[in-house]
Amino acid sequence: MKIGILGAGQLGRMLALAGYPLDLDFVFLDPAPEACAAPLGDHIYAGYDDENALAEFCRQIDLATYEFENVPAGTAEFVAGRVPLLPAPVALSVGQDRLSEKQLFDQLGIPVPRYMPVATREALAMAVRNVGLPAVLKTRRLGYDGKGQAVLRTEADVDGAWQRLGSSDGPAKLILEAFVPFDRELSCLVVRGRSGELAFYPVVENQHRDGILRVATPRANDPLQAQAEDYARRVVEHVDYTGVLAFEFFVANGGLLANEIAPRVHNSGHWTIEGAECSQFENHLRAIVGLPLGSTALRGPSVMVNFIGQPPADADLAAIPGVHIHHYGKTPKPQRKVGHATVTAASDADLADRLRRLQELVRAAEG
Amino acid sequence: MKIGILGAGQLGRMLALAGYPLDLDFVFLDPAPEACAAPLGDHIYAGYDDENALAEFCRQIDLATYEFENVPAGTAEFVAGRVPLLPAPVALSVGQDRLSEKQLFDQLGIPVPRYMPVATREALAMAVRNVGLPAVLKTRRLGYDGKGQAVLRTEADVDGAWQRLGSSDGPAKLILEAFVPFDRELSCLVVRGRSGELAFYPVVENQHRDGILRVATPRANDPLQAQAEDYARRVVEHVDYTGVLAFEFFVANGGLLANEIAPRVHNSGHWTIEGAECSQFENHLRAIVGLPLGSTALRGPSVMVNFIGQPPADADLAAIPGVHIHHYGKTPKPQRKVGHATVTAASDADLADRLRRLQELVRAAEG
Repeated sequence: MKIGILGAGQLGRMLALAGYPLDLDFVFLDPAPEACAAPLGDHIYAGYDDENALAEFCRQIDLATYEFENVPAGTAEFVAGRVPLLPAPVALSVGQDRLSEKQLFDQLGIPVPRYMPVATREALAMAVRNVGLPAVLKTRRLGYDGKGQAVLRTEADVDGAWQRLGSSDGPAKLILEAFVPFDRELSCLVVRGRSGELAFYPVVENQHRDGILRVATPRANDPLQAQAEDYARRVVEHVDYTGVLAFEFFVANGGLLANEIAPRVHNSGHWTIEGAECSQFENHLRAIVGLPLGSTALRGPSVMVNFIGQPPADADLAAIPGVHIHHYGKTPKPQRKVGHATVTAASDADLADRLRRLQELVRAAEG
Repeated sequence: MKIGILGAGQLGRMLALAGYPLDLDFVFLDPAPEACAAPLGDHIYAGYDDENALAEFCRQIDLATYEFENVPAGTAEFVAGRVPLLPAPVALSVGQDRLSEKQLFDQLGIPVPRYMPVATREALAMAVRNVGLPAVLKTRRLGYDGKGQAVLRTEADVDGAWQRLGSSDGPAKLILEAFVPFDRELSCLVVRGRSGELAFYPVVENQHRDGILRVATPRANDPLQAQAEDYARRVVEHVDYTGVLAFEFFVANGGLLANEIAPRVHNSGHWTIEGAECSQFENHLRAIVGLPLGSTALRGPSVMVNFIGQPPADADLAAIPGVHIHHYGKTPKPQRKVGHATVTAASDADLADRLRRLQELVRAAEG
């Protein structure tokens, strides 16, 4: 079976690596000539709005999926009109707009931080009064890795944030969200099969810096596992989702507050390649092609560390036992995710020791 | 770094799948247009004696290796004259001739079954007297998966075996080996780094049928582990080997008798993808590019079952927990290895149960 993937970044690359053993082949559509998944399949080098290229993409494949959440609605509809596109376009539309996403959470009874839509400078002033400070002003669309965000700590930050993100022509499409003084950030990765079968990975504790995920640690028997699964189930069942979805939460006052969802495999699930019985990548493929889902159980302690900018030298990484290297084939560039390593160990003590050594290397490389 | 692989079958395919995360890219040279590793790299479609193609192959790569032991000596020399070829050609020449292989074992003090070279019908008669019956008559070169072999149970089998394997023009290149009434067949996978660093996987117990490997089970703490490592070490140090080498043994009277070596990753090591900390494929690549070797420790109980001819349906396979599917992208054909599954479990009891279910599927599919 030939799978088409919209986007050919590292997520597409890891999907293909997981898919060949299942006898799947891959065609990627991506406008970047150096897209890092390209060596692992056929690469149609075209924009997402190029209907000739999209038609050719659809002719070559049996089934389509995507590896990023900002697939334009028109592209998704064009593809879905020709071949099955999973997850279905409705899942994209929910996650693409932070306001409709928050409204969905409200509708499904999932707690969210206080928020208000912001279209004008006056609306921002009112939102600041209602939501309170500190707060975060975000673009409703196309933000990732901390981009399109401004933190408002005091009233003095409001003008600058508006100048950066506000619109000068017509209403802005922003949202102000209360800054949550969270204890932890957790994500829950859920996978739903074509027949509605559900599986949940153990929740993952995530550490960000400069808005970019740095370290992700799966937590066995976390007290919030059941609550996270309940909220994730509500979303995937509401939109009749197929595939892997990541749900990011804040933990505050002992409970979960919804942050955002990503309708795709997710950076906080990369540890599943070595750390779980069946990886998020294989499970996404199993789900969309209609196979029974694989076990999401842990294989033992593990933790993932991202390489941001410049990765450590392979000889140093490979010298640490239990370190699994994952380069994405991307040119190093500041703030770019160029790879990750997952550390496995038989005990938590060994894991902590190996992680410490790995983080020393990563910090030294990033400078 | 770009790695050239001579041969583009399933071993090349699994090498590439292990290599992309290490930031390696791949070029395959293989005369088969449908070679199953081809989608995972560039494929130079040419014969192994095509010097123009070999020169182009060498121009594109930094380092070469091979995935089958019958690389012609001239090909190996041609390549090794242009780029580093690892394992070095001497390892090929030893393993390609069953007679020189046995002589090497003798020289290194590694016990072997009784054997005699056979060039004529008269020499065969003498060999039968010296070696005794039952015995196996084998071609010295190019045998695999039970091909090029005849079992001699009684004197009545001698003429037929000679007619099948003997030569009508000039001396035959055969070897008669005593048939070993073995208790078990074991293999030892060793990996040796460029600096001489050694690592050994736990020995594997192998079950063959019709000369083809069916089931391979790694054995933790096997009483013969130390002896297997000692013999494997003698071989790889003698030829200054780099990469993974498989050493197959018979177990008889509580000790090991050498059967044969394969200077490459090996079917009896496929379980290492999920069952060991670092797979044989990754460790072969780490060795040849000069990285520190990965841990060969077991991650828990595992067992591998080959798919010969027709594989079971994916929906049935995926429904068994802990079953990891590995298709090779090959057209099903009787007696052809088209894939394998590795079963993992947390306990030996679960492993046995899952293996039983898997073997039922495999037997039903093979018919």
